[in-house]
Amino acid sequence: MAPRILIVGEIVWASEDVEQLLGPIAEVITYSSATRADFLQGLQPGGKYDGVVGIFRDNSSANKIGFFDKELVDGFPSSLKWIAHNGAGYDQIDVLACKAKGITVSNTPGAVDDASATTALYLLISTVRQYAISERSLRDGKWKPKGLATKTHDLTGRTLAILGLGGIGLRLAELAHAFPMRIIYHSRNKVVDAPEWCEYYPNVEDMLAEADVLSVHVPLRAETVGLVGEKWIRKLKKGSIIINTARGKVIDEEAMIRALEDGHLASVGLDVYPNEPEVNPRLLEFPYITLLPHMGTETQDSQRKMEVRALTNLKDFLTAGKGKDIVIEMK
Amino acid sequence: MAPRILIVGEIVWASEDVEQLLGPIAEVITYSSATRADFLQGLQPGGKYDGVVGIFRDNSSANKIGFFDKELVDGFPSSLKWIAHNGAGYDQIDVLACKAKGITVSNTPGAVDDASATTALYLLISTVRQYAISERSLRDGKWKPKGLATKTHDLTGRTLAILGLGGIGLRLAELAHAFPMRIIYHSRNKVVDAPEWCEYYPNVEDMLAEADVLSVHVPLRAETVGLVGEKWIRKLKKGSIIINTARGKVIDEEAMIRALEDGHLASVGLDVYPNEPEVNPRLLEFPYITLLPHMGTETQDSQRKMEVRALTNLKDFLTAGKGKDIVIEMK
Repeated sequence: MAPRILIVGEIVWASEDVEQLLGPIAEVITYSSATRADFLQGLQPGGKYDGVVGIFRDNSSANKIGFFDKELVDGFPSSLKWIAHNGAGYDQIDVLACKAKGITVSNTPGAVDDASATTALYLLISTVRQYAISERSLRDGKWKPKGLATKTHDLTGRTLAILGLGGIGLRLAELAHAFPMRIIYHSRNKVVDAPEWCEYYPNVEDMLAEADVLSVHVPLRAETVGLVGEKWIRKLKKGSIIINTARGKVIDEEAMIRALEDGHLASVGLDVYPNEPEVNPRLLEFPYITLLPHMGTETQDSQRKMEVRALTNLKDFLTAGKGKDIVIEMK
Repeated sequence: MAPRILIVGEIVWASEDVEQLLGPIAEVITYSSATRADFLQGLQPGGKYDGVVGIFRDNSSANKIGFFDKELVDGFPSSLKWIAHNGAGYDQIDVLACKAKGITVSNTPGAVDDASATTALYLLISTVRQYAISERSLRDGKWKPKGLATKTHDLTGRTLAILGLGGIGLRLAELAHAFPMRIIYHSRNKVVDAPEWCEYYPNVEDMLAEADVLSVHVPLRAETVGLVGEKWIRKLKKGSIIINTARGKVIDEEAMIRALEDGHLASVGLDVYPNEPEVNPRLLEFPYITLLPHMGTETQDSQRKMEVRALTNLKDFLTAGKGKDIVIEMK
């Protein structure tokens, strides 16, 4: 009997790839649970998902069965050995609970870098050049806002600070280097294969003091909640800009709003929010900021790449014993 | 007596540079005419602008005295020898009428390249990734539009066709090459110092057939009015995108709108319009296009660079007999 793989979410772009990658070696079934209870019941012996060895999972499933938190993971059967998450950020999965149960978790690094970094570049350009308010002004029938040049700069020659030089941060560095902007970064460790024009700052506050724009690229973990808070924000120069395409909770939203209110921050460009799809209504009152509804990887090319990568992790697990993209906590 | 220089427009960012560049060698006066008649009268012997040898001019003056058309130029005194236009596009000046009167015209190439190309890059990213409609959706309290991934792509690997590889087009090529996009271009002649990854197409229609996105960078002249018309637009692939940061009249707006209506064009990103500040209200009905109110060089850095460059042309005229940036029709 072929091993069972359960799709907990939706494969939109790679349905043909499912056939190619998993068709010959697995029985692929798709979850049909509208509630957490139904989902957990389906995983029990004799249930509709009985015996699954691998799960493909995306964040859309949270609307029905919630996060893959400890409660859910603790209910998984012993047959389950692999969860292939479709996405770079896997903060909806309790990886420590998975580890305790002997379940390996993989994500899709790399596949999202291009699309996410492009979103960050867009927010960078939009905030430095104040295009968002300009677009709204035109669509309100008012042509160009007066005196906007006083609030806008060229990107060229300005300093972009990247917090977290992983795949997405590095990709943004490359795109912004084309102007060129000066690129500085802080990560827990110096990135050995970073280009020489990426300047490493071992001390994050030293980096912040140099930045015209700070772009945040750290994953959401318990220890990164509110990481960019009052203290770090005030280390930035007056008039600087923060871009966030990582996760909303990495920034202390109240501290950020205070800094916008008192003019310490000239602008922010946000693709992510602490409680998506909710957006703090106070943000909508700032005319000079750019707000996107989590468009980071919203392209058919990248979404297909991500789906294929997650499926490939499952295929490699089935055929070789493990997939390539095991999350860092399990390495 | 120091030669008189007349500022016909506004020096916003470079007022200190005026002192430095022209202060020691010229008497700099600023126009104060609310009408064309008053302006022309001021230029007559005994008038308030009597004896000017050089003019600094920007497009803001058109609101008061109109374009530098043949009528205006024919009214200029024989003392006037140089018009230093502040801007890359000088379509508001009848350069042939100037030539006939022995007046040299300069513009500010180079100074605008960075800011204008950044605007084109912004429109390119916005249209390919559909960020404009996403921003409006969020601000309307609706989070992300459904199914947007079907209309969005990664830029990487797509083909950008540049019509007119001058300074701005070349700068855009560099920025888009960072992804990399494939860069192809058509100009009247092959650009000898273009990078090898810029592929020259002697035949414009061959180039159009290859393009995912066409970005327009040709100046407005009699022979470029409606240059991008029905025929060229239909040579583009179905689903392609047009970006225009040059001049609105270079595109046949009616043909473009037809192509948006019937889906031949997936989107357009426009910074310029045929009759600014008017925007054809039919454009506002297309949800998937991005419209900016001529933000091309709207940054304090670039505007100062442009003002300094125009002033430097006047300084060089006064001290060396001619400025560097003489427009192509006069070379």
